[in-house]
Amino acid sequence: MAGDSRAIGKVAKMMRDLDFCMLTTRDEDGALHARPMSNNGEVEFDGDVWFFSDADSRKVREIEAEPRVELSYADPKSYRFISMSGEASIVRDADKKRELWMKELERWFDGGPETDDIVLIKVTPTVVEYWNGEDSGEIELR
Amino acid sequence: MAGDSRAIGKVAKMMRDLDFCMLTTRDEDGALHARPMSNNGEVEFDGDVWFFSDADSRKVREIEAEPRVELSYADPKSYRFISMSGEASIVRDADKKRELWMKELERWFDGGPETDDIVLIKVTPTVVEYWNGEDSGEIELR
Repeated sequence: MAGDSRAIGKVAKMMRDLDFCMLTTRDEDGALHARPMSNNGEVEFDGDVWFFSDADSRKVREIEAEPRVELSYADPKSYRFISMSGEASIVRDADKKRELWMKELERWFDGGPETDDIVLIKVTPTVVEYWNGEDSGEIELR
Repeated sequence: MAGDSRAIGKVAKMMRDLDFCMLTTRDEDGALHARPMSNNGEVEFDGDVWFFSDADSRKVREIEAEPRVELSYADPKSYRFISMSGEASIVRDADKKRELWMKELERWFDGGPETDDIVLIKVTPTVVEYWNGEDSGEIELR
């Protein structure tokens, strides 16, 4: 949809040099936890956000039990913040992992995209809220 | 407790020049939302994190319905991140508001601490996770 692709373009532009975000999930007791995640800088937002993760990790277990997550991007020095609210899923497809794999990821993961020890976390935001200097607003993506 | 005050001191030190954080709450549909919040820089962490807020705001309503929240502090350029998981409560006590009020807050809030339109959000973290360059870990506060 045209409206949707304009909205996605606006979000992509805001995200461009915000590489790291915090991914918040909810554990089985209802407590919220976050950890830093990298977009590897080079991937343009097209409606989904992708991260590689160890398959055997708390965030993967938490997402499988409760897929509603939040992504926070922050650059406090320039007063730019983005919050994305959406659903996450775990993607184990080898082709998708190869497609998104980058050499730099070897810093974080011993195995390459071929190993089952590494999965993708796909986050599909439905609402994006942003604060960009004096400008702020909310974008509905779906 | 001595152990607790050492842990609090360690967290306070890490937070010292991370003024802004993202406060994540859960809405009545189970979706997670975050927004930037300021500690006003000058307040040393003593086990609780305090923010001023408009009384009539979504975050206040969400906290009253579901007090489990998360605070994310991020300085991606120096690879420093803190995630605090804990419980929030709304404090309307005028003495506490006067105690924590600062002149700079007039930028965000029209009324002073005397007005009922402004409340305090008190976040009491139970677990603090941190990533500080090559160092990372988890601190239990309670």
